[in-house]
Amino acid sequence: MVIKEGLRPGGRSARVQESVHSAVRELLETHERTSVTVPMIAARAGVTPSTIYRRWGDLSVLLADVALARMRPDSEPANTGSLRGDLQAWAEQYLDEMSSAPGRNMMRDVQCSVTPGYCVSILSGQLQAIVDRYPDQAPPSVDRLINLLAAPTVFRILFSSAPLEVEQLHELIELALKS
Amino acid sequence: MVIKEGLRPGGRSARVQESVHSAVRELLETHERTSVTVPMIAARAGVTPSTIYRRWGDLSVLLADVALARMRPDSEPANTGSLRGDLQAWAEQYLDEMSSAPGRNMMRDVQCSVTPGYCVSILSGQLQAIVDRYPDQAPPSVDRLINLLAAPTVFRILFSSAPLEVEQLHELIELALKS
Repeated sequence: MVIKEGLRPGGRSARVQESVHSAVRELLETHERTSVTVPMIAARAGVTPSTIYRRWGDLSVLLADVALARMRPDSEPANTGSLRGDLQAWAEQYLDEMSSAPGRNMMRDVQCSVTPGYCVSILSGQLQAIVDRYPDQAPPSVDRLINLLAAPTVFRILFSSAPLEVEQLHELIELALKS
Repeated sequence: MVIKEGLRPGGRSARVQESVHSAVRELLETHERTSVTVPMIAARAGVTPSTIYRRWGDLSVLLADVALARMRPDSEPANTGSLRGDLQAWAEQYLDEMSSAPGRNMMRDVQCSVTPGYCVSILSGQLQAIVDRYPDQAPPSVDRLINLLAAPTVFRILFSSAPLEVEQLHELIELALKS
């Protein structure tokens, strides 16, 4: 993402990143988001503010970087044994996570990121893992799943007065499964 | 929207609103967005900064209010004589507008608004006007049109590296028209 090329993963650079990310996560748990500053993060992470400015440019990019790192799922999407079941499990969890306060903050931060496309590439990876399990069922394309499941979920949260109902999400899954 | 109840439309309050909105629109044409401040807006609008703070709370709410006012369409959606044609015309214009720099800024501002649901209610009004023209064709519900047309358009702009292609938009319209 924002890590510059040529830095060895696992080296000093990776340790700085982990320490700064941890500091941000801890501070966001105990402080109002708008009160968190680069000097506070630097102090907690044991680095200088200029280290942070040099690497991330400004606070919004750093927050976006942390948000994107959080998005990277810890595990494979749940395997329920059927394409419909896997999509329902994935979509319901996505709706839950994005509707939560951390999910909303993450979406806001990611929009400030220099690489918002990274967000869709993470989703694509998860959905690809699901459709790859059912090659003989002519599964929908990942693009179609993003347009029909992820997009309405996020759009309703950001711009509507109420999130999607689970029933609506299930209807969208049926539509996506129609050939 | 942010106008408090009890203020007479057309009175002093409406004149203040129009003058402040104009000042914001003019300043945004000639200044970097991040350099526009409440005192600058107040000076140009001929009001005191405290008038602005009292009415809008802070700059992000004022920017959102201006963005929402801009969204209110000047005219009915184009009437091409067919439901498919009207939806294509509407969706292509929506994609164009939201992909533009002012459209992107507007989406960002609207998310800071106290009433982001207003955004969907404007879209709903436009799409309802279209479907109401074709009552005997069993048109899709407005909710479905928002989920299948507006949501992917906006989601791709905000979170993907490239906006929807017009061909993809047309495929989504066909999907929305399927019963």
